[in-house]
Parts: sequence; C-alpha cells; structure tokens
Amino acid sequence: MTDFARTRAAFHLPQGVIYLDGNSLGPMPVAAAERVAAMMRDEWAQMLIGGWNRAGWYVQPRRVGDRIAPLIGAAEGQVVMGDTLSIKVFQALSAALALNPGRRVILSDSGNFPSDLYVAQGLARVTGAELRVVAPEDVADAIGPDLAVLMLTEVDYRTGRRHDMAALTARAHEAGALAVWDLAHSAGAVDVDLLGAGADFAVGCTYKYLNGGPGSPAFIWVHPRHAEAAQPCLQGWMGHAAPFAFDGDYRPGAGIERMRVGTPPVIALAALDAALDVWEGVQMADLRARSVALTEAFIAGIDASCPGVTLHSPRDPARRGSQVGLRHPQAHAVMQALIAQGVVGDFRAPDVLRFGFAPLFNDMSDVEGAVDRLAGILRSASWDRPEYHQRAAVT
Amino acid sequence: MTDFARTRAAFHLPQGVIYLDGNSLGPMPVAAAERVAAMMRDEWAQMLIGGWNRAGWYVQPRRVGDRIAPLIGAAEGQVVMGDTLSIKVFQALSAALALNPGRRVILSDSGNFPSDLYVAQGLARVTGAELRVVAPEDVADAIGPDLAVLMLTEVDYRTGRRHDMAALTARAHEAGALAVWDLAHSAGAVDVDLLGAGADFAVGCTYKYLNGGPGSPAFIWVHPRHAEAAQPCLQGWMGHAAPFAFDGDYRPGAGIERMRVGTPPVIALAALDAALDVWEGVQMADLRARSVALTEAFIAGIDASCPGVTLHSPRDPARRGSQVGLRHPQAHAVMQALIAQGVVGDFRAPDVLRFGFAPLFNDMSDVEGAVDRLAGILRSASWDRPEYHQRAAVT
Repeated sequence: MTDFARTRAAFHLPQGVIYLDGNSLGPMPVAAAERVAAMMRDEWAQMLIGGWNRAGWYVQPRRVGDRIAPLIGAAEGQVVMGDTLSIKVFQALSAALALNPGRRVILSDSGNFPSDLYVAQGLARVTGAELRVVAPEDVADAIGPDLAVLMLTEVDYRTGRRHDMAALTARAHEAGALAVWDLAHSAGAVDVDLLGAGADFAVGCTYKYLNGGPGSPAFIWVHPRHAEAAQPCLQGWMGHAAPFAFDGDYRPGAGIERMRVGTPPVIALAALDAALDVWEGVQMADLRARSVALTEAFIAGIDASCPGVTLHSPRDPARRGSQVGLRHPQAHAVMQALIAQGVVGDFRAPDVLRFGFAPLFNDMSDVEGAVDRLAGILRSASWDRPEYHQRAAVT
Repeated sequence: MTDFARTRAAFHLPQGVIYLDGNSLGPMPVAAAERVAAMMRDEWAQMLIGGWNRAGWYVQPRRVGDRIAPLIGAAEGQVVMGDTLSIKVFQALSAALALNPGRRVILSDSGNFPSDLYVAQGLARVTGAELRVVAPEDVADAIGPDLAVLMLTEVDYRTGRRHDMAALTARAHEAGALAVWDLAHSAGAVDVDLLGAGADFAVGCTYKYLNGGPGSPAFIWVHPRHAEAAQPCLQGWMGHAAPFAFDGDYRPGAGIERMRVGTPPVIALAALDAALDVWEGVQMADLRARSVALTEAFIAGIDASCPGVTLHSPRDPARRGSQVGLRHPQAHAVMQALIAQGVVGDFRAPDVLRFGFAPLFNDMSDVEGAVDRLAGILRSASWDRPEYHQRAAVT
C-alpha cells in the first residue's frame, strides 16, 4: 500500500490552506528548495561549463523522462523532457501528420485545452492541414477514413471528463489515423497506460500533478513503433544524432532523443527531479483509488450540503479525472470568498468552480473542510461582497 | 565610466580558475542563488497559484525582456523571453517568411550555428521554403531578388567573425528581403544596435554573456514596424490576445506578446533576473572597449609567446566579437592541458581552441594568466600526455 501520509508530508503546504489547485500548479516539494540550491552552488557555480558532463546536465532530460515513464504507462527510454507543453503538442502533431502523408485532417474536440487548438491552427496554416473540432461526445463518430491525426486531451481541463484513451485510439487506428494524447490533467492524477492503449504520441506538462514548479518543462512520449520513423519539425541541435559534431545537416538522434530541441532547462529540471522523488513507492492503482475516493466524497458532500451548485463533471468516476467542476451563477465571487477562507480552487469563465484533488497531498480532511466552507458561504450568501466581484487581470 | 571591478565581484568564480568560457556558459552571479531561493520560498511555496498575479510571474517574460532591450539596442516593450534559442529561431524565421509571401528562399551561411540551420531545414521541409547556405564572406553577393529572408548569426561561434549587421540588413532590404539576426554570441558581448541597423527580427540566448544559468530562457525581438503584422507559427496560449478567455480560436496578442508560447519558466527567469542586475550601470560602449582591449591583448600575447598556434579569428577588432579562436594540430589535448592548469576554454573540432572574453568578469590578469600557461604548455609540450588525448562523450 502506498503511504500517502508520507507523500503529503513531502510538500510545503501553507498553514491554514486547503489547496485544491494542484491541477493548475502543484505545491513546492520540501526537497525542491535544497535540490535547486545544491545544483546552483555545487554544479553551476563550481563546475561551470563542466557541469554538462560532470553533473550529467546533458543527459538529464532523458533521465528525468525515465522517472516519468512509469507514471504514464510508458517504458524506459521513451520519454524526454524539454520546452513547454504547447511546443511538445506542436512536435507530436507535426510528427504524426508526417507519418500519415496521404491525409491532412486533424480531429480534436471543444473540450481540449485552447492552447492545443491554437497550436494545431498554426501548424495547419503552414502545412495545409485542416483542423476539425467537434464536441467531446461526438469524437468517436467523427473519426472517418480521411482522418490523419486524432489529437485529444484525455481529461477535460474544466469538467474533468475523461476520454476512453484505449477505445478512441483503437478507433483512430481502424480508420488509418494516429492518436496524439495530451496528458496535462492526467499525468500524476490518473492511471494512464500509454503502451496498453497503444497510443502513438503523448505529451504533458509537469507543473500540475507532478509538482515541478511554475513553468517546469514538458514531456513527450513516442510509441516505440514510431520512434525511429518520427521526423521532428522542430529540428534543434540537442535532437541531432551528434550534437557536438556541429554538422551542417540535421540527422535525427536515436529514438526519443530527436524530440529534444534546444539546450535543456537545467535549474528547472533540478526542481522537477526533486518533485519526482515523492513518487518513489507510489502505486498508480493506489493513486487512482485515492483520487476516486476523494472526488466521490467531495461530490457526495456537495450533493448533501450545497444546494444551488450543479455538478459540471461526470458522475461516473470511471469517466472522470481527478478534479471536480461545479457550476454556480456567481462562481467568480464564490471562489473569491472560498479563497478568502483558505480554500484554493479555480474559477473558469463563465460560471465554473474547479477543484483539483491531488492524491499525493490532498486527503479527506481537505474534502471535508472544502465542503464545509463552501456550504457555509452559500448558506450565508457571504460571497456577495463587492470585493469578491472584482476580477483580477489574470484569474 | 563603468565599474568593471564591481561587475567582476558580482560573480562566483572558483578560486584558481581563469574562466574563458563565459561565451558558452556564464558563471553564477552571486545574487542568483538567493534570488532563486527567495522565489521558491516566498513565492511558489507561499503564494502557490496566486504567484501568477501576486508575484508577477505572468508578466515576467516581458519585464525581463525590457531589461535585455537596452543591451541590444532595442526599446521597452519589444523583447519577450521564453523557450530556447532554437525555438525562437523557428518563430522569427517562420514569421519573417510569412511577411514575404511571394518568396521562398532563406539565405544563411556556413558560419551559422548548426542548430539555426537545422531549424531552417525543418521549417523549409514543412513549408516548401528553400534554404541556401553560402560561406560567410559570400553572403552579401548571394542576396538576390528571390530572397525572402536573410538569417544570420552576427558573431561566428568558432571564429568570432562579426558580420556587419547594418550593411547586410540594408542589402537584404534593398533586395526586398527581411533580416533575422541571431545574437547568441553578441548579446552582452558587443555593442548591438538592432534599431540602428534596422533589423527585422532578432533572437538570442541568455546563458552565455548574460549569465542566466544553464538552459536559461531565450529572447526574441521584433522591429516595431512588424510587431502588429507578424504572424507566429507557434501559436500558444500565452501569446493569445486574451489567454484566460480560453477562446477556441487563436487571436495574436498585441505586439511582442504574440511571440510568447507556453507557460513561462518562472524559476529560470528568477536566476536570469538576478544576472541582469549586474548590468545596471554598464555602458555598452565601455563594454565594447573593454572587450576589444581584452581580445587585442590576448592576440598580442599569443603572437609574442605561442609559436605553433595560428589565429582563427579576424585580426581587425572591428570584425571580431568578444572571443578568439586559435588553431593547433593537437587542439583537443592542448585544451585539456590548459583546463588541468585552471584555464577553461573550449575545444571545437577539428583543431580549434576557443576563448571567450566576457568583459563583465574577465580582466587583464585573466589574459596574462591564460597566455602564460598556454605558452608554457606549448613550450614544454606538456599537452602530450595520454590523458589529454582522451575525449569525453560531450566536449
């Protein structure tokens, strides 16, 4: 059994705060501060340029990727770190399109995170591909014989609705298409099984449930059947077969190495590496069970004591990630009142309260505290204060 | 007059080391360790998701960009940080191509850093553009009426040869082309004047002469005449006109904002911000004068006391950046011997010894020490030991 008391203790959680926004930015692992300080003091300051070899900075994107692999149902040597999720979406999508040269249609859904759609629009403009966007529930039926690439985010960032990765991937394959999966709200939150699902490409960020810190690097995974055929569009020197030969022509590196682009973000990778220590000994089945227990208890509590809000997430936990969306006409003000009482979730326009449950550090006391305070706010209408109606430039 | 004793003291330089590799990785600014620790402790750990607004993480890529602008002859609001240099090359090049839709030829030179050429090759493949690569001295004559974009690195990473940015940009413009400049070996090293030269796009990294740390974020500059017309190919949510409206369609942000892509690397930007403090009060004319004095003294010392090496950089300082390349048949072993004696430069295949002179922290004692030790090594042939002939996997 996974010891979740240990994992919870591994994070710095400010006193009095119930943090249900780990699906947006994970809290700081206690060990991250010293890990980064040591990297700067003992590696950068002392080794200078020698750190690339002596401290292993050069191989760190692969080494850290190998630590993420077991959390997403992938194997060693299949994951590499770097850049941001939007860049990795571009890489995966462009490589998938190139593997299916006779076709040009990209299919996604309106539940996808907007940045993924923007990236696809930009790629479509320069390559002549066509992006089709349908409602999440219409995806399966929209997969047809002209489809080149199915590009989906497994867990909807607003509703928490979880796609059936294995079934949709199989359907895409039957239609002769490839499947690219964005794991932004999946990695570290649910029991992802990329190899089991037979997915083609996957990408994700590490600042949510993986707790790598604000702007920590993204990851990309390529199924081994494509690893030597995938042709990256973003051809950077770190993905070259021999970066330090300084050849004039690009030759892709072996396998996943070719998905590296520029110089890796060494300081950020040190923080992420410390965050991944917390995952040692965590069984993903335990994680998923705890996630379901937390979200089920939260929904039951809301049903029982929070009239006036409606569930914006699937009721069936099998169809849900590790977050719960609620709708309320004054969602923004309600969330401000909640935050003022120490319960930190997200507001998403126009009327969604979003709560993430990160099994690594959230527990039943968080669920109970959040339900109690939300119920109290709704009962007393204490959200209806002028200051809670003001919107920050960024929410 | 700039106080270079102050700037030198602002860096952590290990005892006994003469560091002439700041053109590859700058040393750690003393203030960077505490700045990063404070960001983690006081912002990430305490503010959690609130740091995006309260600590200004969201606007940091522009705020830091504004600090780089005066170092490259740009103005406030024209520079934004993010990603890596290779990604920024892709952005600048794709935007420049899109601004010149009737043409498809990209011209670069064989002295460009290979990653820039790889990026152009990848972009050319998906867009149908054509990359032409000529020798550095043939660039001017190769600019013709079919040219879409001239893409050059101002200072050659091996020889230090400096292109005439103003003249080549003017020539490109006369031919109806745009000019994209890579400032990797220029920013913080020479007196760049982007607005004066009338350049169209510029990009650069910050881990060399700007001392932002290994893998610190890159920058991109767009001339104001293009800022509202440039259409980014890498369309990420942070470059959207309203990132938190979560629209389904991409609308580019105002001006340089559209060159943002994904979530910014907050920890890395904190280190870079501390590194930029050192530049307060530095006059770029003083910097350039000091750089010329250092490289001239080094070359004079080599001429006087190091027979057997040949200068691999322009003798005319006006045509040289802030580094000096030397050739020696046993350059690798010689560099290993030098490093063993505390003089850190670079080896570049097949036979180049590369020395960077960073005016912010290198001084004449470094020049004298490096010349003395190199002369001693060459005189005694003490480089000819088996251990100096072994090559690391990465050099």
